[in-house]
Amino acid sequence: MNEVAILGVGMTPVREHWESSIRDLAADAGRAALEDAGITHVDAIYVGNMTSDRLNAQRHLGAIVADALGQWGVEAVKIEAACGSAGSAMRQGLLAVASGEMERVLVIGVEKMTETLGRETTAALATAADADYEVEQGVSFVGLNALIMRRYMHEFGYEHRDFAPFAITAHANASKNPKALYRYVIDERDYEDGRVVADPIRLYDASPIGDGAAALLLVPAARAPGAVRVIGSAGATDTLAIHDREDMLRLKAAQTSAARAYAQAGVGPEDIDLFELHDAFSIMAALSLEACGFAGRGQGVRLGLDGDILPGGRIPIATMGGLKARGHPVGATGLYQLAEATLQLRGQAGKAQIDGARIAMTQNIGGSGATIVTHILAK
Amino acid sequence: MNEVAILGVGMTPVREHWESSIRDLAADAGRAALEDAGITHVDAIYVGNMTSDRLNAQRHLGAIVADALGQWGVEAVKIEAACGSAGSAMRQGLLAVASGEMERVLVIGVEKMTETLGRETTAALATAADADYEVEQGVSFVGLNALIMRRYMHEFGYEHRDFAPFAITAHANASKNPKALYRYVIDERDYEDGRVVADPIRLYDASPIGDGAAALLLVPAARAPGAVRVIGSAGATDTLAIHDREDMLRLKAAQTSAARAYAQAGVGPEDIDLFELHDAFSIMAALSLEACGFAGRGQGVRLGLDGDILPGGRIPIATMGGLKARGHPVGATGLYQLAEATLQLRGQAGKAQIDGARIAMTQNIGGSGATIVTHILAK
Repeated sequence: MNEVAILGVGMTPVREHWESSIRDLAADAGRAALEDAGITHVDAIYVGNMTSDRLNAQRHLGAIVADALGQWGVEAVKIEAACGSAGSAMRQGLLAVASGEMERVLVIGVEKMTETLGRETTAALATAADADYEVEQGVSFVGLNALIMRRYMHEFGYEHRDFAPFAITAHANASKNPKALYRYVIDERDYEDGRVVADPIRLYDASPIGDGAAALLLVPAARAPGAVRVIGSAGATDTLAIHDREDMLRLKAAQTSAARAYAQAGVGPEDIDLFELHDAFSIMAALSLEACGFAGRGQGVRLGLDGDILPGGRIPIATMGGLKARGHPVGATGLYQLAEATLQLRGQAGKAQIDGARIAMTQNIGGSGATIVTHILAK
Repeated sequence: MNEVAILGVGMTPVREHWESSIRDLAADAGRAALEDAGITHVDAIYVGNMTSDRLNAQRHLGAIVADALGQWGVEAVKIEAACGSAGSAMRQGLLAVASGEMERVLVIGVEKMTETLGRETTAALATAADADYEVEQGVSFVGLNALIMRRYMHEFGYEHRDFAPFAITAHANASKNPKALYRYVIDERDYEDGRVVADPIRLYDASPIGDGAAALLLVPAARAPGAVRVIGSAGATDTLAIHDREDMLRLKAAQTSAARAYAQAGVGPEDIDLFELHDAFSIMAALSLEACGFAGRGQGVRLGLDGDILPGGRIPIATMGGLKARGHPVGATGLYQLAEATLQLRGQAGKAQIDGARIAMTQNIGGSGATIVTHILAK
């Protein structure tokens, strides 16, 4: 297998993009990545997206994005794994380059969610869960995460306010990122005063949806000396339905994919300088930290309480706002994480820069932990 | 790049599968491919599907199919390129094995379309076309193909009845395939008596939807001496909107992907013993034959009139019924084509066997020619 490097990075801001169609958004990010890489023509395009078929009446995004970018005729395809779509698109782009068949591959994550009514978005997001055994019972996607959070609090004796540092840190970091959706800081009182969404999940436990696109241009590492390299890349799955798992407080697919990525990279949790995790809900941040070996079972929340997740802490997370405050355009998120991690390793993260960052990890989750993709990058 | 071989093949019959959910269908075909290959555990699963998010309220098929197959924890993802989804899933599975990272990859195409009302299916299929510039005008997917067919007839002076051999041959071949949806023969009178769907497309010009799944188990060719090998594999795109093309009577992406596959395989049209083409509409069969070099511009229809497409002819097509009569479960079709071609090369096609078949080609089309994937197999 060829080692793969990231030669270009592009992102649109996350917000309501009323003036852009889904193809425009994807093309904007893709064009930015091409310009950043100084490349005009690619061999293939991989598009990560979750909901365009329902929310934008448009599927078949591979071909349409290739056309919108003026990359006429290139091979192009869409990858879908719910909110893990963009991380999964990265996996396929990487394998295409690693195979030796492709030399310049553009991976783009895109989502446009603010055109439709809330109930349509809720229905579209619920298709990430098990239609026959979960959604059929009337439970929504946030409802499933609420069940997991409640169980976690019960099992390990936490209060709701113990999760506050995840949201507070994400908002503080987003305030330094010009592309973030929510660039305001919050305090513990704001967090606790948030309206209940699905008990115990309150407003600031849940990430906001948004429109946006992020892109990377991948090449063989041998062709790009000095570029950020992908030193670990792995995906794994778990059951969609949380009641089918032996232990719903363990993200098995996070554990598997992280272990595989660590082994490929020859590093361990102690070597990671920053971790762009999938904080779609604060409970997911805690479980992800535990599954990746940054904390023991039931101890993920402690990393927040002890200040370990802050920019200067032991394992900085959500360094540019995370899903919680940069925003969560679901099928684009995995590539926002990778694009932000690349900027950090290049020293181009501006006010959000983590000093001396050399190794970064990203983790993208589809469903309530059913698809999990982990990447490790190094400069 | 490692050369890739097809070690296992599995298919469900194409019909209305009221008793099976979409995960059951995919698992049935996947299990059959594993049994055929004599393998119990795989490294990854690629699922091709187009409409499950709208017609079955379920997306995130990678993880759910892995679970349904008892392949717990493996990497799994869904690939979507409209009706070209399964051919595109094959491409990704092949690249994963070719990269050297994966050794046993299951690719499955699945679609379940008969649970919903016709107008919902029509709306779901229309998302393959350009939402902003085609569908917004009120044109349906069959309507777009009708425009192309009408133009072809006008340009080259054909009558509707000249297309009859495509449907008649497909039905005759399907009558020999126990897994086909329509196992009855038709004659020229039946063809001409078909009701108008979208003028000039009549009933027997259009392929029927259905429920079904088809699967292949891929391994490095070095590990499977004697197995059918993939000697050419390429994908290409064109604009979604047919009015954006220089020439709507030329399938540019078919031409590009076929040329690339021929070059990889070191063969030409004259070496192909059978061609599983994408006869979603009879006009697509004609255009596909032309783009792949079996006939000159405007001459594809002649291959039917001259008997060249019959089982004993120069270039047998739709040998087990094609989309027209085996049936077209849209996101599964590309893998039905590949599974059938594999059976032909193994000499396991039963009554539909093409004598002495050594090299087979398949071509899967998404939209009205926007995504086209071509494979060449050899025994």
